[in-house]
Amino acid sequence: MTKMALANLNAADEAGFMAALGDVYEHAPWVAQAALKQRPFATLAALHAAMMDAVRAAPPEQRLTLIKGHPDLAGKAARAGTITVESKAEQASAGLDRLSEAEFAQFHRLNDAYREKFGMPFIICVRRHSKDSILQQFERRLQNTMSAETETALGEIFRIAALRLDQRIEATDGLEVHGRLSTHVLDTQAGRPATGVMIELLELSANGEQRMIARATTNRDGRTDEPLIAGRPLPIGRYELRFHVADYFAGVGARQDEPPFLDVVPVRFAVAEPEGHYHVPLLVTPWNYCTYRGS
Amino acid sequence: MTKMALANLNAADEAGFMAALGDVYEHAPWVAQAALKQRPFATLAALHAAMMDAVRAAPPEQRLTLIKGHPDLAGKAARAGTITVESKAEQASAGLDRLSEAEFAQFHRLNDAYREKFGMPFIICVRRHSKDSILQQFERRLQNTMSAETETALGEIFRIAALRLDQRIEATDGLEVHGRLSTHVLDTQAGRPATGVMIELLELSANGEQRMIARATTNRDGRTDEPLIAGRPLPIGRYELRFHVADYFAGVGARQDEPPFLDVVPVRFAVAEPEGHYHVPLLVTPWNYCTYRGS
Amino acid sequence: MTKMALANLNAADEAGFMAALGDVYEHAPWVAQAALKQRPFATLAALHAAMMDAVRAAPPEQRLTLIKGHPDLAGKAARAGTITVESKAEQASAGLDRLSEAEFAQFHRLNDAYREKFGMPFIICVRRHSKDSILQQFERRLQNTMSAETETALGEIFRIAALRLDQRIEATDGLEVHGRLSTHVLDTQAGRPATGVMIELLELSANGEQRMIARATTNRDGRTDEPLIAGRPLPIGRYELRFHVADYFAGVGARQDEPPFLDVVPVRFAVAEPEGHYHVPLLVTPWNYCTYRGS
Amino acid sequence: MTKMALANLNAADEAGFMAALGDVYEHAPWVAQAALKQRPFATLAALHAAMMDAVRAAPPEQRLTLIKGHPDLAGKAARAGTITVESKAEQASAGLDRLSEAEFAQFHRLNDAYREKFGMPFIICVRRHSKDSILQQFERRLQNTMSAETETALGEIFRIAALRLDQRIEATDGLEVHGRLSTHVLDTQAGRPATGVMIELLELSANGEQRMIARATTNRDGRTDEPLIAGRPLPIGRYELRFHVADYFAGVGARQDEPPFLDVVPVRFAVAEPEGHYHVPLLVTPWNYCTYRGS
Repeated sequence: MTKMALANLNAADEAGFMAALGDVYEHAPWVAQAALKQRPFATLAALHAAMMDAVRAAPPEQRLTLIKGHPDLAGKAARAGTITVESKAEQASAGLDRLSEAEFAQFHRLNDAYREKFGMPFIICVRRHSKDSILQQFERRLQNTMSAETETALGEIFRIAALRLDQRIEATDGLEVHGRLSTHVLDTQAGRPATGVMIELLELSANGEQRMIARATTNRDGRTDEPLIAGRPLPIGRYELRFHVADYFAGVGARQDEPPFLDVVPVRFAVAEPEGHYHVPLLVTPWNYCTYRGS
Repeated sequence: MTKMALANLNAADEAGFMAALGDVYEHAPWVAQAALKQRPFATLAALHAAMMDAVRAAPPEQRLTLIKGHPDLAGKAARAGTITVESKAEQASAGLDRLSEAEFAQFHRLNDAYREKFGMPFIICVRRHSKDSILQQFERRLQNTMSAETETALGEIFRIAALRLDQRIEATDGLEVHGRLSTHVLDTQAGRPATGVMIELLELSANGEQRMIARATTNRDGRTDEPLIAGRPLPIGRYELRFHVADYFAGVGARQDEPPFLDVVPVRFAVAEPEGHYHVPLLVTPWNYCTYRGS
Repeated sequence: MTKMALANLNAADEAGFMAALGDVYEHAPWVAQAALKQRPFATLAALHAAMMDAVRAAPPEQRLTLIKGHPDLAGKAARAGTITVESKAEQASAGLDRLSEAEFAQFHRLNDAYREKFGMPFIICVRRHSKDSILQQFERRLQNTMSAETETALGEIFRIAALRLDQRIEATDGLEVHGRLSTHVLDTQAGRPATGVMIELLELSANGEQRMIARATTNRDGRTDEPLIAGRPLPIGRYELRFHVADYFAGVGARQDEPPFLDVVPVRFAVAEPEGHYHVPLLVTPWNYCTYRGS
Repeated sequence: MTKMALANLNAADEAGFMAALGDVYEHAPWVAQAALKQRPFATLAALHAAMMDAVRAAPPEQRLTLIKGHPDLAGKAARAGTITVESKAEQASAGLDRLSEAEFAQFHRLNDAYREKFGMPFIICVRRHSKDSILQQFERRLQNTMSAETETALGEIFRIAALRLDQRIEATDGLEVHGRLSTHVLDTQAGRPATGVMIELLELSANGEQRMIARATTNRDGRTDEPLIAGRPLPIGRYELRFHVADYFAGVGARQDEPPFLDVVPVRFAVAEPEGHYHVPLLVTPWNYCTYRGS
């Protein structure tokens, strides 16, 4: 999707503005309407703040209606395809569109329990989460009081809106909604970057599923040409990096046992801050390695 | 099985000696008979050497008969239970008694190809191998010449005999047929041994199977009370150590993210020398770790 | 000095007992006299406890006399050679017999200030200290109250006595007055112990002095045949281990730059627990190294 | 010194051109004269190549005169101040202007031996060297044949010229005559960059001298705001980085012993490639550290 420049948004007529931002808040074009009058916006952050202010300034019933306008996570509407395009893509990002029957039943049970306690749908910014962390948040937030939970739901709606703005509007500033995952392989046997190391990144699920989400080969500097993940939040969850070091060392003629002591080195770690920078390097010889959370 | 003291073996009458060692060489009591006359043996190594000398001194046809007296690996006789007790236990140690149909067919095919080329059964000291490394050796040795392969088969028979002697006879010396796998966990955040870390050892197969073969918890010195493997060869193959470090750090009150950056740390490595000492320690904080082949 | 067996001490006549232990407490044979009546002692710890009990049970004036019977540290009596043989050897262990004029003056000043405030000599178990840590304790303890300082002085006298007993009496138990400093060099380029690495241990002083106190070469296991320090307390202070790794790597034919990136690797650390076990290993390639406090 | 833009050099009249480059080759304006006719130069590399070509195209006697026009290193002319400004600054960069009498005598002896064997002065691009490596090269090159040494001397003259061009002329390309030394401190106890760590860089001499050449404090990213050395060659020689880690850990409230196990961590390494990028990071807790040659 081509992004619209903030300057053009500032200059757009009302119809153009509403076409661009009317659905940033789910089924609540009144939020964009309120922001429309505040133009021009010098920054994306100012636009985002104006929309949040409109929500906070609205009467409580209107805020509740906004909350209630959201679809259930992995709910029947999602299955039936009757939710908004944005919601659909967001739910898919966390794998909510490919649940097993057991998982679908678990979401169903949690949705019901949540609706019964709070009278509203469970809202979470799914792009910042994996299936596992959504379920964990679900269980945890079920313990909240009504007022704490209303606040939490609004916070998540603001995060969803920030990500939608980030995807649509081009500006000189950013909303700091992106994380980054990168790596670096140092051949400490030869004292130089390890070039040509194949690396895979997998997302791990509590149920044992492993999903390959990136694959790259290290360049002359021992890095991947692009970060393994960038330009979006890092979903909270567990990951595994796999470094194919035996192939690399065979390629540079290093002495290895047969079979080699180290072959594919797995490094398992969790992301806890979706907007964080995770640098997970490997210092490696055929006989030892170190890894760490760098920056 | 209680071991017999070498002194008692030296003092035993012929029946006692043959009862103890008659089947060290498969279906070949003549090897023990030859050694009987060399008594007394000062060391186990001397006994082993005397038996090997008897084999090497025998006419070529007798050596070939010795070789041919061995059962097929994972063959029909093994399935039918008509092989010697020793062979049965040895084949089970490498998992040859629990092959899938596909694997059984693969062994069947290799056995046939080997018999067709060499006119004898494929012999390997299975206690030094995993299923994967047996298959690898099988493919590799099929490329040998007849004379090289006869030498190789004899060498394997000597290794089998050494392990049988090691299991039966108690002496002041050893035959250096044991390997050792040990670990050590250092908490480099606190500068002390990590006590109470749960550790699992798994054997990995090329087909994705993972079999738990040891489990232990680190003691006050960060070590396991017993080596993870000792008193026997380390089967050539791939392994994974799993260190449950998030539980440990939670227990000592260290600050960790939620979810913790490191949880269960997997360290994958291969054993290439069954009689080697593999020390695979972990130096770990909640944010980094190093591992290496130590000694 | 040959040690006396505890059994012999138990069986000795009064003269023999007093000859052995009469001067364990400086100028205070009454302490040994009191212990004499408690014989036999099953353990060295019991003997040490009996002597401490005698001191604690004595009238306050007698305890003060005991304290006052000690010589000044690095005082005029020490210079003039009129202190007991034991005190002389102990003061020499921390280098108090080779002070510069400035240091002598500093000790003189501190001794005077201490005597003026507390009316007794400054007592410290010098075998557990370096010159630097003695001066640090001196400054710190000058801030104490009279009663706290009397307790501290007695505690130090007990430590001195424990070390004297440890040096003289052979028993099945020990008084846990020994520390240990050891090292280990792993060649993580080759995945094996580094054999033949020259290692030096230096004691560092705040004034920049460096004194070589041990030198060793690693054996087949990458360790030194004997710990670098053992059988005595480790003096609190700063140390430097020097690992001659370029010579080692040249010897094993490893590729190095000219000049080699790493040559003599210095590892500086402090000892804070004189009775602790300090294991300070080096994991090293020609291009990187790790070191840590192990156990 | 303000640099002259390459475009301006291309547009300059002959006097301007010669003023800028006439002394790039020592006492040999004819080299610049030859290049003058080749203008315009698209790149600095092309200018450098044109000047080298002029030297290579000159008759052998003229090349020898060029070589002989250089002053002795640390020679009497340098002491008397009668050498060119450029030579003087270059010799000072390696400390040749502050030699001890013994070192001056050593240079004198080597200069004499070299002149006697080769009939010309010893020429080396001193900005790429330390005093120690100059002496080492001196001894080594004294073993050369006349023709090899003439080639070596010319190569050094070209390096000197490249550095002089690099300092004077601004262009879009560079002559790749700069090295870089940088560092990075990771607090692996807390899993984040170590901010506020004081770092010193010292140049070490074989005679035990230590000269502080840079000092910096790590920023929010654990790096120094500027590389420790950049914009010039890294002199071949030995260096020590000193990381003040005890102060850092005290500042962030980490538990340390008294005295702290690690205080100022010294990392000694050598530079062998003056145009190389040396990244020497530290991964550190109060109880362990790793360092390596990175990139």
